Amino acid sequence: MRPGLILKLSSPDHPGIVAKIATYVASHKGNLIEFSQFSDQIGKKFFARLEIDTSDLDVTVEDFMAGFGTLGRSLQATWHFRPLPYKMRTAVLVTKTDHCLNEIIWRTELNELPIEITSVIGNREACRSITERSGIPFHHIEMDGERREKGFLEIRNLLLAENVELIVLARFMQILPDTFCREFSGKIINIHHSFLPAFIGANPYKQAHERGVKLIGATCHYVTADLDAGPIIEQEVERVSHFHSPTDLSRLGRQCERIALAKGIRYHVHDRTLIDGHRAIVFPD
Amino acid sequence: MRPGLILKLSSPDHPGIVAKIATYVASHKGNLIEFSQFSDQIGKKFFARLEIDTSDLDVTVEDFMAGFGTLGRSLQATWHFRPLPYKMRTAVLVTKTDHCLNEIIWRTELNELPIEITSVIGNREACRSITERSGIPFHHIEMDGERREKGFLEIRNLLLAENVELIVLARFMQILPDTFCREFSGKIINIHHSFLPAFIGANPYKQAHERGVKLIGATCHYVTADLDAGPIIEQEVERVSHFHSPTDLSRLGRQCERIALAKGIRYHVHDRTLIDGHRAIVFPD
Amino acid sequence: MRPGLILKLSSPDHPGIVAKIATYVASHKGNLIEFSQFSDQIGKKFFARLEIDTSDLDVTVEDFMAGFGTLGRSLQATWHFRPLPYKMRTAVLVTKTDHCLNEIIWRTELNELPIEITSVIGNREACRSITERSGIPFHHIEMDGERREKGFLEIRNLLLAENVELIVLARFMQILPDTFCREFSGKIINIHHSFLPAFIGANPYKQAHERGVKLIGATCHYVTADLDAGPIIEQEVERVSHFHSPTDLSRLGRQCERIALAKGIRYHVHDRTLIDGHRAIVFPD
Amino acid sequence: MRPGLILKLSSPDHPGIVAKIATYVASHKGNLIEFSQFSDQIGKKFFARLEIDTSDLDVTVEDFMAGFGTLGRSLQATWHFRPLPYKMRTAVLVTKTDHCLNEIIWRTELNELPIEITSVIGNREACRSITERSGIPFHHIEMDGERREKGFLEIRNLLLAENVELIVLARFMQILPDTFCREFSGKIINIHHSFLPAFIGANPYKQAHERGVKLIGATCHYVTADLDAGPIIEQEVERVSHFHSPTDLSRLGRQCERIALAKGIRYHVHDRTLIDGHRAIVFPD
Repeated sequence: MRPGLILKLSSPDHPGIVAKIATYVASHKGNLIEFSQFSDQIGKKFFARLEIDTSDLDVTVEDFMAGFGTLGRSLQATWHFRPLPYKMRTAVLVTKTDHCLNEIIWRTELNELPIEITSVIGNREACRSITERSGIPFHHIEMDGERREKGFLEIRNLLLAENVELIVLARFMQILPDTFCREFSGKIINIHHSFLPAFIGANPYKQAHERGVKLIGATCHYVTADLDAGPIIEQEVERVSHFHSPTDLSRLGRQCERIALAKGIRYHVHDRTLIDGHRAIVFPD
Repeated sequence: MRPGLILKLSSPDHPGIVAKIATYVASHKGNLIEFSQFSDQIGKKFFARLEIDTSDLDVTVEDFMAGFGTLGRSLQATWHFRPLPYKMRTAVLVTKTDHCLNEIIWRTELNELPIEITSVIGNREACRSITERSGIPFHHIEMDGERREKGFLEIRNLLLAENVELIVLARFMQILPDTFCREFSGKIINIHHSFLPAFIGANPYKQAHERGVKLIGATCHYVTADLDAGPIIEQEVERVSHFHSPTDLSRLGRQCERIALAKGIRYHVHDRTLIDGHRAIVFPD
Repeated sequence: MRPGLILKLSSPDHPGIVAKIATYVASHKGNLIEFSQFSDQIGKKFFARLEIDTSDLDVTVEDFMAGFGTLGRSLQATWHFRPLPYKMRTAVLVTKTDHCLNEIIWRTELNELPIEITSVIGNREACRSITERSGIPFHHIEMDGERREKGFLEIRNLLLAENVELIVLARFMQILPDTFCREFSGKIINIHHSFLPAFIGANPYKQAHERGVKLIGATCHYVTADLDAGPIIEQEVERVSHFHSPTDLSRLGRQCERIALAKGIRYHVHDRTLIDGHRAIVFPD
Repeated sequence: MRPGLILKLSSPDHPGIVAKIATYVASHKGNLIEFSQFSDQIGKKFFARLEIDTSDLDVTVEDFMAGFGTLGRSLQATWHFRPLPYKMRTAVLVTKTDHCLNEIIWRTELNELPIEITSVIGNREACRSITERSGIPFHHIEMDGERREKGFLEIRNLLLAENVELIVLARFMQILPDTFCREFSGKIINIHHSFLPAFIGANPYKQAHERGVKLIGATCHYVTADLDAGPIIEQEVERVSHFHSPTDLSRLGRQCERIALAKGIRYHVHDRTLIDGHRAIVFPD
């Protein structure tokens, strides 16, 4: 990640909006590295992501960000600045399977994902060793039966205490309480092991086998209170046949899950996503 | 298509079944070009497709086929022989859009699909000229409102009169009556413009746009009385983004539809499909 | 294609370049529908494609285009305006096989490609009937042996007489003379039936079979005097196996060729391509 | 991996060969789980892989294997039996980058790859910690400059001492000596970071960037003395654009490399590959 500044913005569509934003940047000698935008002709909305080289800026980065307020408000925009380099504080929630967790840890170690994994939280012990051998704290929280409510409270307190900005459900087999979804809205990313909206709910690979589909998939999405219906960030597919048992589908699907989740996290952390109701606008890299 | 014989067979799984079938073929000096089989360990069933070079056969092809009966019955099998070369008599049902029809006509002219298009039947006039310019008869049958029942009767009579073996619904925007589905069971192939089981029903591209999916698809399947739930033969996908309007999705989807349908027809006509309840076993080439 | 104006531009990278261009558009009440740009950090160049809704323009389109000159020159840019709607005058050159030609004709009739096919030129008669049945003139030009030079002269004269803006080599099995390539530089699109730079030259499917590759492909590229080395616009691949003979590879490859060529033409005609030395910058839709 | 027996066989094509093999299996009450075969109509050769459930066998597995000799020899076949379950003793050779190594370790731990990693050998120290934290021995062998020859001798001795059956070059940046290639012929698998035969040699991502390709790839192949020309087992591709720098291509390519290599190893270890001159026959699962 290059040093600089990312600006993410959504607003009603206005004439001249690109000119106004780009002119503000240029007026302070910011250099645009990337300027991705989307004028939604149907919803009459504007979405943009700018990556700005700030090395020649004629004001401080703080003043540059503050000074944007006048323009931003006049555009009725919602916007967000992110100074670079940046590592997002991220917690990973898991149950038993560790392939998604391993992928995240590995890509983080390789600097593919600019995150800092504050901790891994599991409602089983299964992922402790893979977590701890990379020097990451592992918290086991009991959530079975009547311990569920208390468990989510503990998780919440942990996330707040660790100042977590992103919560990744890496095959976490628990349905989140509505209050939890709302409190961390836009900050929870899940990987669902099907090509949504096909096969919502439990056991998608078994469903896929019974239906005899010729492609299976995985979907990375933001979590909302509406289960499996949150804004989709990324999807992957893999060709399969009658030859593959549900176990084979699980194996082949793991690859889709890992790729879709890793890409989804990357897009989120690089501020390449904007949520628009039930959809996510994504400017991939 | 090489001259020879295709044998398609399904049965309960038996020990030694491959040996018995292959030995029968070899005993009459048939040469196996291909022997695709699948032992379903879950359903305890056996499925096979054999392509046999008959040039050295020591009996007539008729006797070879008849002589298989003893073995076939002892295996409690369902089987079907197809002497090659063969052109399957095929009717195409259409409404307004012609991209799937054009694909079928074009691939037939190029000898990619071993079919003879007996006629194209439309409940609109839209596809008349593209049909007739290739020398294929076009029948317009009114099906609106109360003419629907009579219309399907006319279609049925036409199919029977023309001795049709395969009915392709090439974006035919009518739901088939149950009786029709049953009468031509296993002989009707449809192209659905979504990645089933996602977005069943009307306007899948509009549904896909609203849901913000990152991949769209098309599904070629056998038609059963249970709408959009017939055995899947082939599926294709294409990557899309927020950038694409429902109109764009239709355009991109047309390509998926054409490819999935053409492959599906090819597999069926080459006897590469076996229906197994809600699934299709497909040995692709 | 919506009415409006497309601006395509390339220049050395400048600070504030997006702001300047967008401000010019906004200053005359042009509305940006799309603004795709790419700042090449390695080559220090800037590339952009703008789609402008001109319905609220406060000057004539002609004045708007002319008025851009001052800014364009100050940026040391190369630029091009295209008023919409537009149909590009296109000639298709063929030899024997017609799958690419058929794809182009069909997509043109369906309004997927905003072109007007002025004529099809063949050094064989094979594609006459598929051309003429769509009401397009077909010219047969002899090019064998010593007639080659004279043949290319005839083609050149025909292209000039018909005011052709785009020349599509739809499996035209002749190597173009250097002078021809230079005269129509940036206006000739070819489809090569391999995944370039693999298998340059003749018989790529035979080469692919011998090499035992697991994926075959097709490449759509601009033609330069350097055979098979022109800027790549689009590539497609298809999975294959040992099972497939060279004939099978040809069949499966035809699909790649059709898709890659159709997309390549579409990107060119919609001004979504910019040539940058040996590369093409492509903003796909 | 289910218990049983895998039989891999190649021979000249014979009439009745499937019948003979299947009959031998059935005669001893072996149950065929899978019988994949390929009759190469061009090369007149026959290739097969059988997976046999041996639970009802009427002889010992040893006698079953020995008894096949008479038939095998009469078919002039080359064949190989593998009793299951089986873990193949595998050494991984690395230099600096660890993404392929990590993928192999991870899939092995997850039981996706039935191998036992005897050791990791590096000509750099870079991969020591990732290796040792999984309890696998790491050997650092100096190979720079004039130490190269001695280094390969050390590696050879290590491989022989550890009774290694499979050598995986997981981004090992050294060209193997011819004698080494010959001694371990058919037992060395490499991952090349391009879509072979495009971009052979060094720096394929840089070459791909300069050529402006729209898809990059990775190729898993057997190593022969002819560099980058060994039989291809698996290939993967990923869509890219002008937007991606050589560094981006490396990042995106890593995913292709990991997938292609993991699949290639899996196919080899499950005896799903047969080498046929410059090609590999692969029956994927």
